[in-house]
Amino acid sequence: MSVAPEPSATAYAPTARTVPTRSKERAGYDRALVHSILDGAYVCHLGFVRDGAPVVLPTLYGRVGERVYVHGSTGSRPLRMAGQQDPGLPVCLTVTHVDALVLARSAFHHSINYRSVVIHGIAHQVTDLDEKRLALDALVDHVVPGRAADSRPANAKELAATAVLSLDLAEVSAKLRTGGPNDEPEDLDLPHWTGLVPLRQSHGPLVPADDLADGIDVPAYLRDL
Amino acid sequence: MSVAPEPSATAYAPTARTVPTRSKERAGYDRALVHSILDGAYVCHLGFVRDGAPVVLPTLYGRVGERVYVHGSTGSRPLRMAGQQDPGLPVCLTVTHVDALVLARSAFHHSINYRSVVIHGIAHQVTDLDEKRLALDALVDHVVPGRAADSRPANAKELAATAVLSLDLAEVSAKLRTGGPNDEPEDLDLPHWTGLVPLRQSHGPLVPADDLADGIDVPAYLRDL
Repeated sequence: MSVAPEPSATAYAPTARTVPTRSKERAGYDRALVHSILDGAYVCHLGFVRDGAPVVLPTLYGRVGERVYVHGSTGSRPLRMAGQQDPGLPVCLTVTHVDALVLARSAFHHSINYRSVVIHGIAHQVTDLDEKRLALDALVDHVVPGRAADSRPANAKELAATAVLSLDLAEVSAKLRTGGPNDEPEDLDLPHWTGLVPLRQSHGPLVPADDLADGIDVPAYLRDL
Repeated sequence: MSVAPEPSATAYAPTARTVPTRSKERAGYDRALVHSILDGAYVCHLGFVRDGAPVVLPTLYGRVGERVYVHGSTGSRPLRMAGQQDPGLPVCLTVTHVDALVLARSAFHHSINYRSVVIHGIAHQVTDLDEKRLALDALVDHVVPGRAADSRPANAKELAATAVLSLDLAEVSAKLRTGGPNDEPEDLDLPHWTGLVPLRQSHGPLVPADDLADGIDVPAYLRDL
């Protein structure tokens, strides 16, 4: 079983690809910050190159230490490509939270407050069965923490039909904007309302499946969401 | 001024890139569906190829008819690349909504309900000033409809500092999953709770800027959000 790399410091080392050309003050490399952004979203956007052109697909993911996993059918394009290419598939995996709309007096200074993580690297197909099971548990627990232990694990047929890609957290950066609008001094007297529109994601009331048997209570990990 | 293409039918024509290899029943090409998914999200994920590797960045966007626009500093990488490359920059622009977590009895059938749009194409730098102004209005109105008319438009200096890319809606598909979990018949008696956890995005209370002058009321287009 391949083992995810141990963190050697509290921050990722910046590289040419992870230092932005502008708004450098918005970039961050702290591991705890990167982990918190990754752990708080449901989907990532996975980019890869196919026939010379970019492809960006939304997909579920999970994190185990310094490694993220995505999965899919063994027949899906990026998963097949990663298994066929040596040493793997160059990818860019991006996760974004939109926290607020930033309404400035000038159109130019309109913006959003956001937190994002961009991971560059080579995705490898996971062939070790133990790591594959660990990754699939992480994917389910990423959706709802505690859920993997309260569901039937994949059987041999399902494991064989599922491909898993791993991507190490090595070339990684966070980027975020916080705070209010930044208008030009000469615009401060303009008569436009200015400020933030915060955005919130919440869980609606649970919708039990039509065929849920009587007597199965909502588990604690769902009540606590 | 370049004019966005007129729609020739109520649906986009599928291409080799927009027909999925699996779950074909989840794919859609209806223009109204694609437009509604595009119009309801705040950020897209823009993919392009740099030095042979994929890059995926979150960014704001706006739609005018059958064309989407993104913008950025004239110094930012994809915007610079689109201006330097002939005939433009190959991109993939993806927008995703996560509507619900799907908790099946088996780990294998866990999923999410989502709506996404993937646009493949060549992004061009907008050089016509009228189209640039139209695009910037669309970007601001995409964040909050009605806002462009209630903010100071970009001046000549700001227009010169901003690059805008256009991407026609030609090679486009939507993909969506709806409905409850799909467990295997042999799993129906397992004792795990099963159903949907709906997700909702809402607006929190407005946060006026620290320097907002007295007497400027919250405009109607913000009260109605």
